[in-house]
Amino acid sequence: MPANPTACVILIGNEVLSGRTPDANLQYLGRRLGELGIPVREARVIPDVAETIIDTVNEVRARYDHVFTTGGIGPTHDDITSECIAAVFGVPWEPHPEAWRRMEKAYEPGQFNAARQRMATMPRGAVLIDNPVSTAPGFTVGNVHVLAGVPRVMQAMFERLAPRLERGQPIEARAVHVVQVGEGLLAEGLAEIQGRYPEVDIGSYPFYRASGNGVAIVARGTDREKIDDAIVEVRALIMSFGGTAVPGEPLPH
Amino acid sequence: MPANPTACVILIGNEVLSGRTPDANLQYLGRRLGELGIPVREARVIPDVAETIIDTVNEVRARYDHVFTTGGIGPTHDDITSECIAAVFGVPWEPHPEAWRRMEKAYEPGQFNAARQRMATMPRGAVLIDNPVSTAPGFTVGNVHVLAGVPRVMQAMFERLAPRLERGQPIEARAVHVVQVGEGLLAEGLAEIQGRYPEVDIGSYPFYRASGNGVAIVARGTDREKIDDAIVEVRALIMSFGGTAVPGEPLPH
Repeated sequence: MPANPTACVILIGNEVLSGRTPDANLQYLGRRLGELGIPVREARVIPDVAETIIDTVNEVRARYDHVFTTGGIGPTHDDITSECIAAVFGVPWEPHPEAWRRMEKAYEPGQFNAARQRMATMPRGAVLIDNPVSTAPGFTVGNVHVLAGVPRVMQAMFERLAPRLERGQPIEARAVHVVQVGEGLLAEGLAEIQGRYPEVDIGSYPFYRASGNGVAIVARGTDREKIDDAIVEVRALIMSFGGTAVPGEPLPH
Repeated sequence: MPANPTACVILIGNEVLSGRTPDANLQYLGRRLGELGIPVREARVIPDVAETIIDTVNEVRARYDHVFTTGGIGPTHDDITSECIAAVFGVPWEPHPEAWRRMEKAYEPGQFNAARQRMATMPRGAVLIDNPVSTAPGFTVGNVHVLAGVPRVMQAMFERLAPRLERGQPIEARAVHVVQVGEGLLAEGLAEIQGRYPEVDIGSYPFYRASGNGVAIVARGTDREKIDDAIVEVRALIMSFGGTAVPGEPLPH
């Protein structure tokens, strides 16, 4: 079985770094790319500074099979992702005829102004990613996929792009929660189970909630049978300490 | 006026990358560090793989004044941050007498087992960061501050650490929202305003909400007067297009 392709996500924009806006894009991309068997191995959040964008994209596109950027492709002065991707690949940044046609059509006569024309200006060779929400397309150059920052637009673009991506083995996950037994008591047994299932990634995550503190234990990987077997052992471990293992849903924190 | 110190945040753990758990730590740290005048310039989300943790911390500790890590300091096999920080600084990873004393006291006799003792094992020279929620301390080595991953614990640790950090000029932000005028019409005028206020960082963020689509324009910096002046100009720009500028709150997306 060939190894899964890998992905890196780059969130471009000052709003997430400043804490003003919570990120929603990494969670969506992490989940969907896992389903497609293209697990996200790293994510970076960077400001809209040209040198930083160029250096970061160049570094990670050499290291991962796919790079997904979000943000910085609008019409304003702080939207510089597209020019930066042209610099990354050393190609001209120029009007993209099909993007230009779509956008010109979407505006009233005279409203497709210079600022909006920048959204139809792309690195030479860019392959469009459709935008069914607000017209202005994203694009792919090489292994770099350039998506919008607004979550609703980003998600719609990603779903148009997804059929073009070569998939790997989907990543599956199962979780159990326990509230009566501390993580520190389970740790030794969990390490032993992890040792017996090297192909399953077993994680342990304490949570603090009004309804009670506890631990979420997650088994993740591409082999559903092995994941199920590992979870059976985790449940037995929990019961050996007098605890009750309940099926775990994702934690809202 | 000296330049502000800078920060990088490293979120360690597979749960955020997989999309199973939304991140809450970057938003908190971004906001609080901005208030302390130590703006977050970059964030990374990485898996709990030793080589990745060591390489990432080494890279960013040379580039930023402060590095804050969250996650990977619990008792289980996937908690490897502490050992990795010892490797980063080339120092032994050994029992920390004061951390050991606190933790031993917090458990019933016989319950401070080998797994929990790992949480009292730290790089030599580590300076403790108190944990008023669940005892096990974080720590600082050099310019690297190692915090828990559970948001409630991370936040409590950060607030204990904060008084030790040398502050810069607080980052302030003001925002206005407009729903009647598209970003593409405002773009040219916004670029001109940005040109007149180089010390203010002006960002433009479209939003799509049930109550109406619009644009949030945010002015951010350390000079409150300049921020206010820039916002006056932004309001005038919006009105020149027949729009209404309303005070903007952070967007939930």
